[in-house]
Amino acid sequence: MSKTTTNRQWRIAGRPVKRAVAPEDFSWAEVPLEDSGLAPGEVRVRVSHISLNPGLKGQLESIAGYVTGLQTGDVVPSQGLGEVVASAAEERPVGSLVIGNFGWQEYATAPAAETDLASNLKQPTALLGVLGATGLTAYFGLTDIGRPSPGETVVVSGAAGATGSVAGQIARIAGCRVIGIAGGADKCRWITEELGFDAAIDYKSESVRKRLAELAPAGVDVFFDNVGGQILDEVLSRIAPKARVVICGGISQYQREGRNQGPSNYMNLVFRRARMEGFYCGDYADRFDQARGRLAGWLEDGRLKHREYVENGLENAPAAFIGMLAGANVGKTLLKI
Amino acid sequence: MSKTTTNRQWRIAGRPVKRAVAPEDFSWAEVPLEDSGLAPGEVRVRVSHISLNPGLKGQLESIAGYVTGLQTGDVVPSQGLGEVVASAAEERPVGSLVIGNFGWQEYATAPAAETDLASNLKQPTALLGVLGATGLTAYFGLTDIGRPSPGETVVVSGAAGATGSVAGQIARIAGCRVIGIAGGADKCRWITEELGFDAAIDYKSESVRKRLAELAPAGVDVFFDNVGGQILDEVLSRIAPKARVVICGGISQYQREGRNQGPSNYMNLVFRRARMEGFYCGDYADRFDQARGRLAGWLEDGRLKHREYVENGLENAPAAFIGMLAGANVGKTLLKI
Repeated sequence: MSKTTTNRQWRIAGRPVKRAVAPEDFSWAEVPLEDSGLAPGEVRVRVSHISLNPGLKGQLESIAGYVTGLQTGDVVPSQGLGEVVASAAEERPVGSLVIGNFGWQEYATAPAAETDLASNLKQPTALLGVLGATGLTAYFGLTDIGRPSPGETVVVSGAAGATGSVAGQIARIAGCRVIGIAGGADKCRWITEELGFDAAIDYKSESVRKRLAELAPAGVDVFFDNVGGQILDEVLSRIAPKARVVICGGISQYQREGRNQGPSNYMNLVFRRARMEGFYCGDYADRFDQARGRLAGWLEDGRLKHREYVENGLENAPAAFIGMLAGANVGKTLLKI
Repeated sequence: MSKTTTNRQWRIAGRPVKRAVAPEDFSWAEVPLEDSGLAPGEVRVRVSHISLNPGLKGQLESIAGYVTGLQTGDVVPSQGLGEVVASAAEERPVGSLVIGNFGWQEYATAPAAETDLASNLKQPTALLGVLGATGLTAYFGLTDIGRPSPGETVVVSGAAGATGSVAGQIARIAGCRVIGIAGGADKCRWITEELGFDAAIDYKSESVRKRLAELAPAGVDVFFDNVGGQILDEVLSRIAPKARVVICGGISQYQREGRNQGPSNYMNLVFRRARMEGFYCGDYADRFDQARGRLAGWLEDGRLKHREYVENGLENAPAAFIGMLAGANVGKTLLKI
């Protein structure tokens, strides 16, 4: 890095509003990078892994209030892991492993204060998944919005996904009966046999509504929803009095053309005196350390398991992201550069 | 009442699920009534006024958990006001004016303990409206579910209806800026000029979305929804961060054929970290007296106004109810027998 390097990156080229994300929404750029460009307190990071997250669809739509304004031409936002290759910050010397909002690019320049040190971890990529935004989203969504009590019935959709798989396991640790909804026998087997969910519903081959009537005859106390659409509607038809419906995502709708399918059974919120609520993980920043400590403890004692699904090559980022939206994978999706 | 009287009543004849309520859902019955039939503690009431309430649609659908099971053949349920004409309860002597769940009939027999005394009121029918279930629903829905703070922007749909008109006025008393959505110039004039709403949107002639953008540029903090459908969707598109959407009713959907229109903008609950919640007034029974006292105080000092719309004749009950669902009237709808 003592001369000019080329930084390869993906930039935002389109706004996928009321339509599917397409490869054309991303444009490839190669820009020269001067080694001398660091301001005091900054680090330059060679990114090794990028976190792929369905929530990027919402960010690309740039819906006001959720994230601060993204613009066409900006580097595609995402968390990443990498090694510090140049530093103007004492606390992050060259060679440190760090995570931060590095975006879809090979080299990121960021204030050291906005990075977290990952050097001391056995598995640094966990900071992008189960110990990172994904795990924290599951933690705060389930505990603070879902507020499950021991013995309650918790249903999780997208249960084999990065967030759903963690949310379901936290519910189990909290003493709840946990039913996961996932697509396909492999995912269903994984969540019941390896993650300890009490039951799984394969929405591709079973009626969610009928299976819930069998598995949760007294109704669903907490629903942690990652998918929206038909599944949200069917679970709403089976909520218990005072149920809490945590809206974490709506992946079934992200690649839909036109308006979202709204939940036609929402009036059950009245009939069952229930609540449906969204949240943003960043609102809980002052409790991140506490939550990460708990998640790490559960990982350590084996009560919490996770899986990473790794795609390769920065050039494949758009295809990997679009594939994830189609439900191609199990666990946390990472892209290795 | 010393001989056999004929009691005329309307009974439930159909279940209007996924379809409009029709006159055929009610059947007329005339049954003999023996004066001698009172058990200790019971009273017989000659009903003078019946409260008509859109929520009856949901009751007729008999959705489990909302009300205990109604059956075909039961007297149509409703609150009513009447005079005690026979009594086996000391605390409700003959001649007392009482309200209770008397149903759509001329004579009701009920435990005295399940009636409230109305004799001491200047306007006894207020106990069916602004001081009854209607006013209490507005009170607890707005204050406990909506939790408005002074200076916040509150939007009420069905704002010229019995519940909406009270909810909006309570929000104003709580120091909020209040925007009412109603159908037609007369209703809009009433809520702004007489009830003191800060603004009105006539959804029949204006775009709710555009007008909200003008009237509430920083977004809607509390939405008290009585109508559902398109209006719910348009308000959801304009909610502020941490907004509270109180689902009180969905009258626009009650006479719809097929499934309800679900709110396609529900994902804004995530983007704005907002909450949508239903409630049941009966859950707050231990605070009814306190709330009634406040409502009565506001009526007394002129800060709370109400209007009654009175239809006549028990035989017209089904038509009056169906007309109310079509938005025919302003304020609280009563049927005078």
